[in-house]
Amino acid sequence: MDKIRIALAQINTTVGDLDNNTSKIINYVNLARSSGADLIAFPELTITGYPPEDLLFKNQFIEDNIACMNEVVQESKDITVVVGFVDSSPHLYNSAAVAHNGKLIDIYHKQLLPNYGVFDEKRYFSPGNTCPIYVIEGIDLGVNICEDIWHPDGPTCSLQSSGARVIVNISSSPYYAGRLTEREKMLTNRAKENDVFIAYVNLVGGQDELVFDGASMLVDPEGQIIQQGYQFKEDLVISDLEINTSDDRTEKSKNRQSNNVKRFLITEKTNDTKYNLSDQHRSPLDELSEVYSALVTGTRDYVYKTGFDKVLIALSGGIDSSLVTTIATDALGPDNVVVVAMPSRYSSDGSLNDSKELADNLGVEFQVIPIEPPFISSLDVLKPHFKGHKPGLAEENLQSRIRGLLIMALSNKKGWLVLTTGNKSEMAVGYATIYGDMAGGYAVIKDVPKTLVYKLAIHRNTYSNKPTIPLNIIEKPPSAELRPDQKDEDSLPPYEILDPILKSYVEDDRTFAEIVSMGYDQTMVKDIIKLVDRSEYKRRQAPPGIKITPRNFGRDRRMPVANLYKPF
Amino acid sequence: MDKIRIALAQINTTVGDLDNNTSKIINYVNLARSSGADLIAFPELTITGYPPEDLLFKNQFIEDNIACMNEVVQESKDITVVVGFVDSSPHLYNSAAVAHNGKLIDIYHKQLLPNYGVFDEKRYFSPGNTCPIYVIEGIDLGVNICEDIWHPDGPTCSLQSSGARVIVNISSSPYYAGRLTEREKMLTNRAKENDVFIAYVNLVGGQDELVFDGASMLVDPEGQIIQQGYQFKEDLVISDLEINTSDDRTEKSKNRQSNNVKRFLITEKTNDTKYNLSDQHRSPLDELSEVYSALVTGTRDYVYKTGFDKVLIALSGGIDSSLVTTIATDALGPDNVVVVAMPSRYSSDGSLNDSKELADNLGVEFQVIPIEPPFISSLDVLKPHFKGHKPGLAEENLQSRIRGLLIMALSNKKGWLVLTTGNKSEMAVGYATIYGDMAGGYAVIKDVPKTLVYKLAIHRNTYSNKPTIPLNIIEKPPSAELRPDQKDEDSLPPYEILDPILKSYVEDDRTFAEIVSMGYDQTMVKDIIKLVDRSEYKRRQAPPGIKITPRNFGRDRRMPVANLYKPF
Repeated sequence: MDKIRIALAQINTTVGDLDNNTSKIINYVNLARSSGADLIAFPELTITGYPPEDLLFKNQFIEDNIACMNEVVQESKDITVVVGFVDSSPHLYNSAAVAHNGKLIDIYHKQLLPNYGVFDEKRYFSPGNTCPIYVIEGIDLGVNICEDIWHPDGPTCSLQSSGARVIVNISSSPYYAGRLTEREKMLTNRAKENDVFIAYVNLVGGQDELVFDGASMLVDPEGQIIQQGYQFKEDLVISDLEINTSDDRTEKSKNRQSNNVKRFLITEKTNDTKYNLSDQHRSPLDELSEVYSALVTGTRDYVYKTGFDKVLIALSGGIDSSLVTTIATDALGPDNVVVVAMPSRYSSDGSLNDSKELADNLGVEFQVIPIEPPFISSLDVLKPHFKGHKPGLAEENLQSRIRGLLIMALSNKKGWLVLTTGNKSEMAVGYATIYGDMAGGYAVIKDVPKTLVYKLAIHRNTYSNKPTIPLNIIEKPPSAELRPDQKDEDSLPPYEILDPILKSYVEDDRTFAEIVSMGYDQTMVKDIIKLVDRSEYKRRQAPPGIKITPRNFGRDRRMPVANLYKPF
Repeated sequence: MDKIRIALAQINTTVGDLDNNTSKIINYVNLARSSGADLIAFPELTITGYPPEDLLFKNQFIEDNIACMNEVVQESKDITVVVGFVDSSPHLYNSAAVAHNGKLIDIYHKQLLPNYGVFDEKRYFSPGNTCPIYVIEGIDLGVNICEDIWHPDGPTCSLQSSGARVIVNISSSPYYAGRLTEREKMLTNRAKENDVFIAYVNLVGGQDELVFDGASMLVDPEGQIIQQGYQFKEDLVISDLEINTSDDRTEKSKNRQSNNVKRFLITEKTNDTKYNLSDQHRSPLDELSEVYSALVTGTRDYVYKTGFDKVLIALSGGIDSSLVTTIATDALGPDNVVVVAMPSRYSSDGSLNDSKELADNLGVEFQVIPIEPPFISSLDVLKPHFKGHKPGLAEENLQSRIRGLLIMALSNKKGWLVLTTGNKSEMAVGYATIYGDMAGGYAVIKDVPKTLVYKLAIHRNTYSNKPTIPLNIIEKPPSAELRPDQKDEDSLPPYEILDPILKSYVEDDRTFAEIVSMGYDQTMVKDIIKLVDRSEYKRRQAPPGIKITPRNFGRDRRMPVANLYKPF
């Protein structure tokens, strides 16, 4: 039996931060070497960060990224390094550099380029077309990149038929709820189909609307996950693989050297003794912890990576802003979160008290700015223009926009980032005020349906003995408090009914007839679809937020604003 | 010599408006038939409108579009109809239906799918791979779609080698300044290279951030443009082509029937006498008229296609809002434009007078709302929170946001769309207030650099004897009037210097070193690049606006917000 020790470095990079990404890569290379690893693999596009988007059109960016890759190559003494970067000859390729002992051995080009969902890789990259074999410690090994491993008849299959016993896949696979299970199932299948080990390394951390969940893993040829990295934090996952290289398969593969498949001999078998590894398999988080962690990670990384350290939240006393405050506090610490209550004539005393209680529970600074004076003076200057019109939506939005204006003034004055608090159900039906409660830099729960907001709040309360989010906030009926006795359910169906309809329409592209056939009232479904379609203009101007579902409002869903399609 | 009469129907469709698009198509088919045309061609994706974006993921949308295509087929009595739609078997294809006498003769699938710039066609479509020949009036003719004709060795070349004498290309080619010249040059080359006639039909009208300029054309094998449709309005361009089909080429092509190329015999030669056509060649607009027309077209179509009929504009007395008001009035008529002056303590008397004069010149309604009362009361409630800070940006933005709030209140109350007035130079460096002057549904001059704003204003003044835009507005130094004696040039280089640097960085992806080598001061270039990079978060929340340059801020430029790349 031959042995190889593989280290999977799931690191948190930042798009464009070439120098710091490179320093981090070199630190991990040194750590892996001192842990006796024969090979260390980093996530897809490690050097540039993922996704670099249109930075890729800047020649200098590409050149700088290649210079950084060469720096990493220099640091590959006594270890094979597989690191993601952008190769540029003759076209742009999403690439993996394979380096050993200071030499660049080979560059692998990603073959299957995703161009769906949030991905635009065909905008940038040309596909590769060769699957070389790298021989390390006498073991035949293949490298591919993310999407390459998702297709049964893709490059993994070619590598296997060229004799690979281990597939190293470097990925930057964005999170959504349930994605890890899909990924595990796919890797298990791929390992079994091809009778290979799979060493899968995934990016970790947040980047704009995406969160990468890590959970890198080592899967054996029987489809067992034998090691797995943490979710949502950096980790170096080290595994020893034992492979019988004296069997038929290896012989056959050596004979293929005469074929077109390139084979690079990197290291011969050695018999150096290595210290034993402790078991590093970690059990995945439960469903709600996972989503909550994604939201915390996304928030923390967006705030830090955009150069802020402190955030401002308009706390209404409702469940949405309460959950966002809790997430922000878990992400940044209580000293870096300031909440502002902005009561109006329609705000209940309860809301202010509940807000104060939450702020106290979390230990965050609590400020109060009454909106009544600017509301009155705005109505006053508008009076001649509103003559003959009844009070209505304009007056409701005005309150929300005064709050937006005041919190942005505070943001400008103090240099703190405003987090917005709208949920996915609201964003879908347009139950939010553009330039009002939608004003801010990052929309933490933009992709979280209201019913899941409740579940997450209840879940977060289990983190401590005493509920952090006051039960009153969870139990009272949701209200925007923009007119007397207003309740969400005056305008919308109950969220238990609304959310599954929204999921069917927005995420699953179900037709009107299909949704009605699920047992919902025709008129109600029509009204909801109309609301969704008409609110596209608001979503176009919304801040980015964290994707936690298979289809978010963002790069995932590109709808025209001017759109006269009638789906019923 | 054989003759074929071809009609190019450059119509203005609306995305998703399947029924009305179809009715319009049928009307034009009837018009072409009564004009004696043998063939009528419509723009790319005529039935769905272009670009339909993620509507394409809705099965029902695809089915409905196919039903509409079949309706058009029924109406093809005595005429061949080439109409754009989405075919769905077995995948989605960007397609042209070829119909005659109520029968669907064939479906052509677009082969070259653009996935750059504003285009995402590989997100949706599979490429086709056959180039059939359609024989009409005894003449061999080929059909292809937009991008297909841009590449010398693409489908046009295959069609020629199969014997095609006429290429019908159906396009939806978005406008930018100079695009028509590029298109003419390309079509001229393609016609000469292949010794074929090219009948090129292009969409007309606005759709979200794109404007399509029409200017359909008929190019002869010598590369002469023998007919051309209007720019920016619907047109039916009818041409007679005379082709000698008894020559060698035709014989050779017939012999190719044994090859793999499909040949559809649609109509035999006829000798029916047709009335003579008058010359329809129209001279293209000059450079400034063309851009101005694009802005008028984009504004009109966005307003109508999103269901509005009237717009509101915050008129500051500056050149940007004055130009936007003029464009809107030209697009919608003076009865559908309302301007609001919102003077503050820092507004000059001149600004108010200039605004009033412009409104009078245009005949639009002029309203005044003072912002001082809500400004004072907002400052008042913020006072305890601003303690210890000097007045600055927060107070400036506050004024802009009060204007945003007041104009949005008016918009909500009256149901009128707010047009924003920021230019491209401002959008680039972030010299605009998010939720303030950026608040509104459509950003008319978002892609127009400030120096071009001046040129367009001066140009528009030549449309009448007396200047419509008061000369004082054009001549005074630009100012945001948010603090005493503020001038744009206090914060920014003169626009004559700023604009070329912005173009180099934003549109041409020039490096810092390249821009400096053009003769600009290093520190200034650094400052500008930093401003551009730091303002991405604002642009992400900006309303859509009309693309008039090769790269706009929108689908054309997809930059990360969290981005730590240092380009120097």
